Amino acid sequence: MSLLVVGSVAFDSVKTPFGEAADVLGGSATYFSTSASYFTDVNLVAVVGEDFPQAHIDFLKSREINLDGLQKVSGRTFRWKGEYGYQLNEAKTLETHLNVFQSFKPVIPDSYKSSKFVFLANIDPELQLDVLKQVKGPEIVGCDTMNFWISGKKDALLKTLKEVDILIINDGEARELAGDVNLLKAARCILSYGPKILIIKRGEYGSLLFNGANIFAAPAYPLETVFDPTGAGDTFAGGFMGYLSNTGNLSEPAIRQAIIFGSVMASYNVEAFSLERLKKLDYKEIEERYRAFKKLTHFEDL
Amino acid sequence: MSLLVVGSVAFDSVKTPFGEAADVLGGSATYFSTSASYFTDVNLVAVVGEDFPQAHIDFLKSREINLDGLQKVSGRTFRWKGEYGYQLNEAKTLETHLNVFQSFKPVIPDSYKSSKFVFLANIDPELQLDVLKQVKGPEIVGCDTMNFWISGKKDALLKTLKEVDILIINDGEARELAGDVNLLKAARCILSYGPKILIIKRGEYGSLLFNGANIFAAPAYPLETVFDPTGAGDTFAGGFMGYLSNTGNLSEPAIRQAIIFGSVMASYNVEAFSLERLKKLDYKEIEERYRAFKKLTHFEDL
Repeated sequence: MSLLVVGSVAFDSVKTPFGEAADVLGGSATYFSTSASYFTDVNLVAVVGEDFPQAHIDFLKSREINLDGLQKVSGRTFRWKGEYGYQLNEAKTLETHLNVFQSFKPVIPDSYKSSKFVFLANIDPELQLDVLKQVKGPEIVGCDTMNFWISGKKDALLKTLKEVDILIINDGEARELAGDVNLLKAARCILSYGPKILIIKRGEYGSLLFNGANIFAAPAYPLETVFDPTGAGDTFAGGFMGYLSNTGNLSEPAIRQAIIFGSVMASYNVEAFSLERLKKLDYKEIEERYRAFKKLTHFEDL
Repeated sequence: MSLLVVGSVAFDSVKTPFGEAADVLGGSATYFSTSASYFTDVNLVAVVGEDFPQAHIDFLKSREINLDGLQKVSGRTFRWKGEYGYQLNEAKTLETHLNVFQSFKPVIPDSYKSSKFVFLANIDPELQLDVLKQVKGPEIVGCDTMNFWISGKKDALLKTLKEVDILIINDGEARELAGDVNLLKAARCILSYGPKILIIKRGEYGSLLFNGANIFAAPAYPLETVFDPTGAGDTFAGGFMGYLSNTGNLSEPAIRQAIIFGSVMASYNVEAFSLERLKKLDYKEIEERYRAFKKLTHFEDL
């Protein structure tokens, strides 16, 4: 089945304790679709400016990502500049230039409209809702958001969440969205807003799945060198949604496997700046690390 | 086999967002031995003052903990006062009165000297080394420590670690001990100090086992109400060492199971102040939660 993603394509300038990179390829839709492309057909909707180089287009095409929905408009591409300290948990944003992203209105091409899986990356919840009006009854809608929308556009976000099947956010966002520091209580509250499935990302500590009454805890893969955490969350979501879209199986075991695939993709992504590691990845490596996750977490029954 | 523990017995005054408790039973050796007593025979070495009530002695005896090594001396028992915020991760110490613990010199009774398993709870590393001189070739020595000794008595601590098989510390302590923020690199460094096995506790995020080249990640059990985290680390260590001492099996699978038992015990302990929950626990509940950990972490092979 095919997977539609709506989000950002950007240039990132990133400084970490291990080096820096200027004006490299980034953006939620970029990370998501590249990651998902290892599992399924991806339809991308985003906007770039006139300064967006053909080489990046060529790369996305080489991953067989459908770019019919990538608008190229006059102006400059979205730019973000951030820095990470040694803990690598949270970026300090130094500069944000929305540029052409400021007036982004997602237009879903006809060829995308029957996508069975849809992922609304972190954009204005009003735009997320507008996307859902344009598509024809997708089977599964996944969604991301951030503190900026939780505090600034809560009503619109709650409207969007009513239409969403799977919400994927980080622990701080979950606590803020629910107004509860306890993650279990926060999860129960968020599930009452609409989503049937909630995935809470906890960075280096992995993720928690809440699927009805079931809870699944997945660790992050322990790495010696986390070179650049930028895009890890979107890469996770891409692997997760990509695997689900590939199998079309939405059973609890399949969802758990999808979370491990998402974790695998994120663990590779942070090993290099931008999408450098994802660019070189092959499917054998993905399976290899899936098995490493199994070895990392397995213990005997009683 | 029997398990010797040397540590503190104390009175704790604790305030959490969910309530407070004054002068309740606490201390590393208390939590450790109560937890371990569900799995194995425990020999306790600690010191209390004249103010230590018979009721607490009776409780420890009811858990069949051997108290031959519990010194009762003139003066007051060790007292600690602390407070937790909503995050419940780290206590803010408000008061510490070492009292009789200040001049504690562990004396290992003859009846304990052939204990096959030994746990050195968080005390002065010089005293830890002295304990090891008093016992007769234990099979396995486990050890805890804290930042206070890492920064204040590093040389003595490194001497102790040479004699230790299993070190159980939290992530902040591991980073400080190794001087490396990356936990994998920190773990490799610490294993070079002597221990064959390192367990890094990460509070609500669970724990990591480093056993030679093997790594095992265990989550913490997601709880709706963490009432009081005091003693969780010692309760974890007690369940872990208690299970190992019970089976005498030190294979990787057995060590992983022991970590789950430790996590189970810690998850119960934080459900109430002091040892109130551990006092009421039965073995069926322990097995029940072990199975819940399995359900929490299981995913299918590729």
